[in-house]
Amino acid sequence: MEFKQEWLHEVLEARSKAYTPFSKFNVGAYLVTKDGKAFHGCNVENAAYGPTICAERTALVSAIAQGYKPGDFELIVVATGAEQPSSPCGVCRQVMKELCDDDMPVFMTNTAGDVIESTVEQLLPYGFSGKDLTND
Amino acid sequence: MEFKQEWLHEVLEARSKAYTPFSKFNVGAYLVTKDGKAFHGCNVENAAYGPTICAERTALVSAIAQGYKPGDFELIVVATGAEQPSSPCGVCRQVMKELCDDDMPVFMTNTAGDVIESTVEQLLPYGFSGKDLTND
Amino acid sequence: MEFKQEWLHEVLEARSKAYTPFSKFNVGAYLVTKDGKAFHGCNVENAAYGPTICAERTALVSAIAQGYKPGDFELIVVATGAEQPSSPCGVCRQVMKELCDDDMPVFMTNTAGDVIESTVEQLLPYGFSGKDLTND
Amino acid sequence: MEFKQEWLHEVLEARSKAYTPFSKFNVGAYLVTKDGKAFHGCNVENAAYGPTICAERTALVSAIAQGYKPGDFELIVVATGAEQPSSPCGVCRQVMKELCDDDMPVFMTNTAGDVIESTVEQLLPYGFSGKDLTND
Repeated sequence: MEFKQEWLHEVLEARSKAYTPFSKFNVGAYLVTKDGKAFHGCNVENAAYGPTICAERTALVSAIAQGYKPGDFELIVVATGAEQPSSPCGVCRQVMKELCDDDMPVFMTNTAGDVIESTVEQLLPYGFSGKDLTND
Repeated sequence: MEFKQEWLHEVLEARSKAYTPFSKFNVGAYLVTKDGKAFHGCNVENAAYGPTICAERTALVSAIAQGYKPGDFELIVVATGAEQPSSPCGVCRQVMKELCDDDMPVFMTNTAGDVIESTVEQLLPYGFSGKDLTND
Repeated sequence: MEFKQEWLHEVLEARSKAYTPFSKFNVGAYLVTKDGKAFHGCNVENAAYGPTICAERTALVSAIAQGYKPGDFELIVVATGAEQPSSPCGVCRQVMKELCDDDMPVFMTNTAGDVIESTVEQLLPYGFSGKDLTND
Repeated sequence: MEFKQEWLHEVLEARSKAYTPFSKFNVGAYLVTKDGKAFHGCNVENAAYGPTICAERTALVSAIAQGYKPGDFELIVVATGAEQPSSPCGVCRQVMKELCDDDMPVFMTNTAGDVIESTVEQLLPYGFSGKDLTND
């Protein structure tokens, strides 16, 4: 899928909302639905570290709370200010596995506009899912 | 603060979006900002359990991603289908501590319309916050 | 319950194991079981912040993995290097609610030896528990 | 690396300690250090779902609390009762990324003794780490 420059503009706008008093590491996410709507996400940190929620998850749960369902998502873009585009953390990959198609494109970018493309499945091979939850 | 019946309508609408394939325990949240806007939240579960995000946090991070800042929130309402209104879990209390005023009202309700009122500080006494983060 | 000086020694020993490359905020926990055994805990941070596990939870899951069960715990001590003893974060309070008696003592201390005593119930009033999980 | 049958015995012993009142999905972990010691882990669930800690993380933080450091680990084995061996969730992969060598073997097994071998890097390609945490 070709990366659109307007996505860069959107994801950096989302990134500007980041609440990062502890790391100062600002992350933005831009989630596009199959029916053409979009959601912004940013990381929201916490003094206790563990309750921190990343940009990707913020965008995804915002969409679910608006009525979107697993499988309704077309792509996600993630942006940081790092020299090389950063990838989603394992927690976000697990949430994408739950809510997104395995072949959904995940674009990683940065303020310089570099772009790396991957997919949910490539980022979480042998992904753990509800199919694993059997009670022997 | 007097509980408004329209909040019950809103929080149950939010609750209807819950993604709960594992617990079937649906929770809704309704967050009102000081400038009169509102955000819906619902719980979004995960096969791995740990990445589950509750309704209260979904509403709060949705607001932050739209540009709201810590301290911008007027009140939050949480609703479940339990016989007695349920309280927020510890993770959500910690996130409220980070993002909300200590005396912000937290209303707990249920599908029957029972209401219990508390505050962030009452729910997380001696709350851990960024003020504790000193490097000795 | 009277605070024992040996607990301070133990919890500071536990604290010395903390893995905190991001916050440099070291926390220790010392968990005593009803049958007289004890477990150390320390915080273990993560570059992604969210997967960070606190000292209290480290001690509790270490004990469960050794065969201890919910209700087997006598007390827990938490120590930081802050000027005032810090309290457990909301996530840890929620895990204590699950695994500990409501009236279990929680001692908060620091390198200076100041001590504050509380209980699980005082730290998480109206605590959310499995009793709330009803499917309406 | 050749899988040893004694590891299967150990990881199933660890699995027997799982606290899973909500999912009934029991998981065990067996972590071996480079200096020949070993740690058991099991999943420890929570009524609020989000504070749930998996078997792999339980074993890793238990070891850190005993003084082990990132890089001290030789291998980890994970076992469930599922028909096909399950893989670690994204949260655990992120914690392994932080604490383990990229090429550390991760063995996935089950009560039937089936074995799949992978590594930390294979399970979390383009893994997010502290190197990404730059403040632009």
